[in-house]
Amino acid sequence: MRVLHHHELCASSRIIRLVMAERGIVCLPKSEQPWDRVEDFLRLNPAGDVPVLMTEDGEAICGASVIAEYLEEIEDKIPLIWGSASERAEIRRLMDWFEGKFTREVGVPLLNERFIKRFVDEGQPSSLVIRAAMTNLHIHLDYLDWLTEQDNWLAGRQISLADLAGAAHLSVLDYFGDIDWDRHSETKNWYAKMKSRPSFRELLADQIPGLPAAAHYANLDF
Amino acid sequence: MRVLHHHELCASSRIIRLVMAERGIVCLPKSEQPWDRVEDFLRLNPAGDVPVLMTEDGEAICGASVIAEYLEEIEDKIPLIWGSASERAEIRRLMDWFEGKFTREVGVPLLNERFIKRFVDEGQPSSLVIRAAMTNLHIHLDYLDWLTEQDNWLAGRQISLADLAGAAHLSVLDYFGDIDWDRHSETKNWYAKMKSRPSFRELLADQIPGLPAAAHYANLDF
Repeated sequence: MRVLHHHELCASSRIIRLVMAERGIVCLPKSEQPWDRVEDFLRLNPAGDVPVLMTEDGEAICGASVIAEYLEEIEDKIPLIWGSASERAEIRRLMDWFEGKFTREVGVPLLNERFIKRFVDEGQPSSLVIRAAMTNLHIHLDYLDWLTEQDNWLAGRQISLADLAGAAHLSVLDYFGDIDWDRHSETKNWYAKMKSRPSFRELLADQIPGLPAAAHYANLDF
Repeated sequence: MRVLHHHELCASSRIIRLVMAERGIVCLPKSEQPWDRVEDFLRLNPAGDVPVLMTEDGEAICGASVIAEYLEEIEDKIPLIWGSASERAEIRRLMDWFEGKFTREVGVPLLNERFIKRFVDEGQPSSLVIRAAMTNLHIHLDYLDWLTEQDNWLAGRQISLADLAGAAHLSVLDYFGDIDWDRHSETKNWYAKMKSRPSFRELLADQIPGLPAAAHYANLDF
């Protein structure tokens, strides 16, 4: 059976958990602590990051974009990167935007302050860093409001990898209770739709010992 | 005609300049200063980053991976992402490694200290940051030595997007004179081969006013 090496609060890992659930692919999840730099795991992925998908042939497919493209090529019945070359470019642009800009400016700083410093590095969270990340988050949510106003789905006429990427990234912040949904009603409607999908159930059941999810995290009405 | 918005010292832009030259695609280069956050450019790419490829239909294709995949789909005569799904995953993994880990740990800090601080922010370069990035660079070049020892090309039996990505990233550091080639002879042999390709000529002719390239930068024997 395929094995997915992941971490519960890693947004990139969550993207692949959603992609696999949408495709109905069963796999054995294996939770990793990538910051421990365990030798066995580094042999699978020299970059030391999750997610890593071990195929049934024992090959390691590393990184969310790479795994998403790989599954698109071998399991093409449910296309998540669909359409013309331009439409596919737009889906990939949004995937990149979440995995790049959004991660750098919001995801990484908030994960560091809310989780890594408390449970790994035993440091003091910096209110300055949190404030800067929250400001970035509101700007980026305004952009998502605009995108979700244009169409039902982030990249246009049907659900795509872009929606799974966006929902995965927001779901980690929502676990911490960092999203002010009242200020972003368009994004809220879209996220509510994503959250109701069967593929989301497993994510909503995640619990980190010592760090409970925000009260509304698993509620479909929030 | 297609227009490529790029910056001369942006490794991701250089990847696309190499991809287009390898494919024999002619385009009009337009040099951008992405840190200026010019309104017209932000309309093309909300992320504000180069490279951006404007197609003949006036569509903006944003980001190196996205443009590389797009060109692969519309101009499939010279495949740069080739082979089985696993081989394609390995090519994409290496592209991601250069654009992600290598950029974060080496490319961004050295570009900041060597160029942005001097010409944009008017700050003082930090010898501490430079030292840390140089240490990371040696570790990553050891990994490239290992990869180039296994095969002629980074991802196996023929040239791929991974080689263009790697050579583009190293070329920026080599412009600054930051690579100690004597310590990395396997990578040097591979880079010499890349540097001799006609697609590389335009990169070797780049000159930044006030920041001349290292003496050996454009030499094919270095």
